[in-house]
Amino acid sequence: MFPDPPGCSFASDNAAGIHPEVLAAISEANSGHALAYGADRWTSNVEKEFNELFGKEVSVFLTLNGTGTNILALATMLRPGESVLCTDWSHINDDEAAAPERILSTKLISTPSEGGKMSVDSVHARAEALGNIHHAQPGVLSLTQATEWGTTYSIDELGELCEVAHSYGMRVHLDGARIANAVAALGNGRTGLRQMVVETGIDTMSFGGTKNGLMAAEAVIHLTPYPTQLGQHLRKQVNQLGSKMRFVAAQFLAALKDDRWLDWASHANSMATVLHSGATGIIGESAGPPPAVNSMFPTLADAVADPLREWCFFWGWNSASSQHRWMTSWDTTREDVECFLQGLQIAVSQAENRN
Amino acid sequence: MFPDPPGCSFASDNAAGIHPEVLAAISEANSGHALAYGADRWTSNVEKEFNELFGKEVSVFLTLNGTGTNILALATMLRPGESVLCTDWSHINDDEAAAPERILSTKLISTPSEGGKMSVDSVHARAEALGNIHHAQPGVLSLTQATEWGTTYSIDELGELCEVAHSYGMRVHLDGARIANAVAALGNGRTGLRQMVVETGIDTMSFGGTKNGLMAAEAVIHLTPYPTQLGQHLRKQVNQLGSKMRFVAAQFLAALKDDRWLDWASHANSMATVLHSGATGIIGESAGPPPAVNSMFPTLADAVADPLREWCFFWGWNSASSQHRWMTSWDTTREDVECFLQGLQIAVSQAENRN
Amino acid sequence: MFPDPPGCSFASDNAAGIHPEVLAAISEANSGHALAYGADRWTSNVEKEFNELFGKEVSVFLTLNGTGTNILALATMLRPGESVLCTDWSHINDDEAAAPERILSTKLISTPSEGGKMSVDSVHARAEALGNIHHAQPGVLSLTQATEWGTTYSIDELGELCEVAHSYGMRVHLDGARIANAVAALGNGRTGLRQMVVETGIDTMSFGGTKNGLMAAEAVIHLTPYPTQLGQHLRKQVNQLGSKMRFVAAQFLAALKDDRWLDWASHANSMATVLHSGATGIIGESAGPPPAVNSMFPTLADAVADPLREWCFFWGWNSASSQHRWMTSWDTTREDVECFLQGLQIAVSQAENRN
Amino acid sequence: MFPDPPGCSFASDNAAGIHPEVLAAISEANSGHALAYGADRWTSNVEKEFNELFGKEVSVFLTLNGTGTNILALATMLRPGESVLCTDWSHINDDEAAAPERILSTKLISTPSEGGKMSVDSVHARAEALGNIHHAQPGVLSLTQATEWGTTYSIDELGELCEVAHSYGMRVHLDGARIANAVAALGNGRTGLRQMVVETGIDTMSFGGTKNGLMAAEAVIHLTPYPTQLGQHLRKQVNQLGSKMRFVAAQFLAALKDDRWLDWASHANSMATVLHSGATGIIGESAGPPPAVNSMFPTLADAVADPLREWCFFWGWNSASSQHRWMTSWDTTREDVECFLQGLQIAVSQAENRN
Repeated sequence: MFPDPPGCSFASDNAAGIHPEVLAAISEANSGHALAYGADRWTSNVEKEFNELFGKEVSVFLTLNGTGTNILALATMLRPGESVLCTDWSHINDDEAAAPERILSTKLISTPSEGGKMSVDSVHARAEALGNIHHAQPGVLSLTQATEWGTTYSIDELGELCEVAHSYGMRVHLDGARIANAVAALGNGRTGLRQMVVETGIDTMSFGGTKNGLMAAEAVIHLTPYPTQLGQHLRKQVNQLGSKMRFVAAQFLAALKDDRWLDWASHANSMATVLHSGATGIIGESAGPPPAVNSMFPTLADAVADPLREWCFFWGWNSASSQHRWMTSWDTTREDVECFLQGLQIAVSQAENRN
Repeated sequence: MFPDPPGCSFASDNAAGIHPEVLAAISEANSGHALAYGADRWTSNVEKEFNELFGKEVSVFLTLNGTGTNILALATMLRPGESVLCTDWSHINDDEAAAPERILSTKLISTPSEGGKMSVDSVHARAEALGNIHHAQPGVLSLTQATEWGTTYSIDELGELCEVAHSYGMRVHLDGARIANAVAALGNGRTGLRQMVVETGIDTMSFGGTKNGLMAAEAVIHLTPYPTQLGQHLRKQVNQLGSKMRFVAAQFLAALKDDRWLDWASHANSMATVLHSGATGIIGESAGPPPAVNSMFPTLADAVADPLREWCFFWGWNSASSQHRWMTSWDTTREDVECFLQGLQIAVSQAENRN
Repeated sequence: MFPDPPGCSFASDNAAGIHPEVLAAISEANSGHALAYGADRWTSNVEKEFNELFGKEVSVFLTLNGTGTNILALATMLRPGESVLCTDWSHINDDEAAAPERILSTKLISTPSEGGKMSVDSVHARAEALGNIHHAQPGVLSLTQATEWGTTYSIDELGELCEVAHSYGMRVHLDGARIANAVAALGNGRTGLRQMVVETGIDTMSFGGTKNGLMAAEAVIHLTPYPTQLGQHLRKQVNQLGSKMRFVAAQFLAALKDDRWLDWASHANSMATVLHSGATGIIGESAGPPPAVNSMFPTLADAVADPLREWCFFWGWNSASSQHRWMTSWDTTREDVECFLQGLQIAVSQAENRN
Repeated sequence: MFPDPPGCSFASDNAAGIHPEVLAAISEANSGHALAYGADRWTSNVEKEFNELFGKEVSVFLTLNGTGTNILALATMLRPGESVLCTDWSHINDDEAAAPERILSTKLISTPSEGGKMSVDSVHARAEALGNIHHAQPGVLSLTQATEWGTTYSIDELGELCEVAHSYGMRVHLDGARIANAVAALGNGRTGLRQMVVETGIDTMSFGGTKNGLMAAEAVIHLTPYPTQLGQHLRKQVNQLGSKMRFVAAQFLAALKDDRWLDWASHANSMATVLHSGATGIIGESAGPPPAVNSMFPTLADAVADPLREWCFFWGWNSASSQHRWMTSWDTTREDVECFLQGLQIAVSQAENRN
């Protein structure tokens, strides 16, 4: 018999709610009138905060959701006729409902990957098409950090990918829906962000907030200043401009203050480590490798996965390999993890008894 | 000398903040985990509430901003190759940054209008193109209620436009970014909504929330049920799906409860009436006709408009006719109005003295 | 009783066939193998011919049809997010089935016009939107020469429109589907073309061939060299690249040789003058003003137009004003015109007798 | 020392010219006026011919080039929001410059393939995404016959693929740019076409002409009648409508008469067999398997390929496997083949001597 399920599910970091400090910031910003569409003081403050965060002048375009953020980033990066090179498992290719193709009218050239990571060889191979008018012309290389498989690129790997891409005239986009978890894992504070994104040569990034305790707030960051008006016009064109933008800005102000965004992500990461360690004790190598960030991808027989999921929901990830995804978040507690591991133990025992 | 400006500007109803009841509802929904992307109980509750509101089963797709809502509505309505018929002043044609054309890859056939209203004659005239493969084929007629010029269609006018459009095989979209103000002006409670939208034969509407005290919440409503999965897929394709949708749903739950949405809009409308009446006392016919909803469009010389705007911002609306827009909102107070009228009096006197 | 109808209809210049010299050129080019997609000697020769024609180095992208040519021109001109300013009667706005919006995902901002001509005032008025992120941003001004109403811009008018557009940062596109007729009307040979297109400051033009005796051959001409590979890639993207391009090139080689294209257009123009003069003798001012090029737009009662059209087809042009279009072509003969005028006389007499 | 190169290259069947019978048909159609855009008697005749060819009433939309034909076919097949499933090597995915994504604003879901052939397993695997709103929804399965690698599907294979696709609610598109070669290879005359396309359950096909001796003529064929006006409107929208369509129709009339199209393709196929047989005698297994249609893909060291290509051009096909493509056409002669084999022998000997 399963106990009561944990207070927090392990389905996704976006099943979590709003961090109390973020909600407080929204509430505080709710006083009087402010001009709509970003002409407010919260928005200009958040731009300053991002400049400080990156240690240089960047362009910031606040946005409403993850898919839209990636699409805006690409819309600002692509030149007429160009395509995007990405992995088969990339969020833009696999999880965005063909929205990029619809809104950008552009090809995503997807290439096989290991653990969701793009290889330098793949970039070389696809660059062969450059100059042949009959083939799609990759103008942007899109990488995800942390990846959709919970892995991370090292700083060296990112640097090499940027170098190779730039050598072909491509620009590099980083989908950082979970950049907080990747930087937290690096463990060097905001300096780590600069090493990972500025020093490697990334051109433009999607800076995620919603998966890290915000209500609904993301941003496109250009590491080299981008024409403001054009970026804002394109943001409106891709449906990523809200009218009461001060409430989006306020969320980021709360997250960036005292680098709370890294604390929250760090907590989620460490809960994943605890979860993985406990799960390894129960299912051994089927737990997979230790998590780099806040997710793990255990291999589970249906006899285990089905009742466990029934009790406390999580998503299947790859039916071909029987892999599932367990994910922690800013609000996952040690008790939640222990309770979930208890459930795992029960599911495993029941499955064994049934045999 | 101007006094301190009013607490609320008259720039736009989306310069106002979040109604306290809406913020409370967001806060209340922030407890524990809930599956993302609308698979939560707030979302299913709001669907029930909309069914009750309309007195029939409707399809509800919650969305993030006004432009995106119109685009999703059109995306669900358009058949391959079709175009959209609208007025030159319609929001989709004039204020959405060419986002509809970008995301829908469709032509908006704009037609001259009076007071932002589409005429039956214009529909007949443009329908002449039907069947000619060289011309854009209008498949959807899009109307706005209340219009961008603060006017409203009568129920009979809407009914006739729907009838004519349907006779040509077109479907009718209603951009109801300010539907609350239009229904409140009608003064028949939610029955008025049904008369205006259901009985007239509207097919699909954009149901606005953000301009009426919500933080960021809109909805596409199909008055005849629409395939759920397809609508949700298209919503994701046009960047209108957020992950933590429970917080969007919670906003509407607060607004629909006890028809608070109509109270809020009604208040905004009546403040506009007070404003207009006072302004007429100062500038006479230049105040324009009495407002149908929550905006008025006074004709002002620059010598009046410029210092007034400097003191308390509002938007110019039509440079050719020297018309400006003053708009009230759910939080405009009588004191705000009086203060603004005082400022108007000062601006007028100063301009006269200068001559 | 009507006699036998003329050998050539007056429906359109594209109802005419292929000029024998063009067909001969196709036949001559049909010998042996040639690499596909424009890597052939006919294509490189035609590029040289166009350089000579314009008296400067231009970029030439041969194309397949008129709509596709305009779309390719715009595709090469538009920067991300930009829209196109054009008249309500422009071919791209009214006669291209919303293909520009579909393929370019861009707004055509149409503006009312007289006789199909864009006014400088309209450009100024629409340029007001520049810099406002909520409005479509006109980046290209598209003009048609000769216009869809058979009128022409003077060289001075073109020069002024280019100057004003450039002052706003817009580029100027010329839809020259009937450029041959406009240049022939100017009467200064290929020097006239240079005065009309090069000296006025046009950036890019659609150079029509099909309406002037070619089988199917058009070209996008950039008056300032454009990146070859990018232009070719975009041409393929908009479905305007054929495999056996040598046969497209061969058509233009025949037309440009000894400026035969101007002879053909000149003949069509003069046949229109003869037609108009005869028609004025029969229906007076209803014949409209003398044709600037190869079309006239008589006002005809249905009682005249219907039997006449039944006998020898032509198109109605504007139902609101009862105007129709009669058009001559490279192969219209004096006998065709006389026969048609005879028919007109009969139709008029019959209509009068009926009253 | 190489002799004079063959009169016909082995680069591509679209490097060949126009079959004399086709050119004669164009010339014959060039008499007098005919209404533009397909309202001519040649077009209506060709529709009748296609009905006879397929043994049933089909819908025919004549088109201008191969890429455009595939795009029109897909434009007529796709429902709102849907994507297209195809192989990684398919022409639409790899050789059409991202035009499908640009014009259709749709995702091509590409899947790894062997010899350019889609497997039933791939269809099952990709169909897993159906119903998940976050994933692209494959609504059309696109196959190529003969494939880009010169292989063919058997009738049974096509039948099974159609059955599986239909079971998921997908429609099946056949890219038949070289359908003539595939049907000719089957050796059952026009009955073979019906077995291959009608009886298997194909919904819509691209029927190629240009690669088989036509100048520039293709067609979209709907095996079940499709709304005429809608198809014609979409054809115009995707830049595939020419004005003087009679000359496109005339080309097909010549090809379909007495099934000359099969004679021409059959000749090309048999020349490929002769070429392959001779090449096998020189380079053994490096010649690859016997050609199914009119192409072979030999593996050649650069030392052989480079001088041979210099002498008589052909394309590399897959740099990773050192494979090249030799292709025959309607006008390849036995002398051409013998001459080319002579050249191959010389290139091989020279390369050996150099070692």
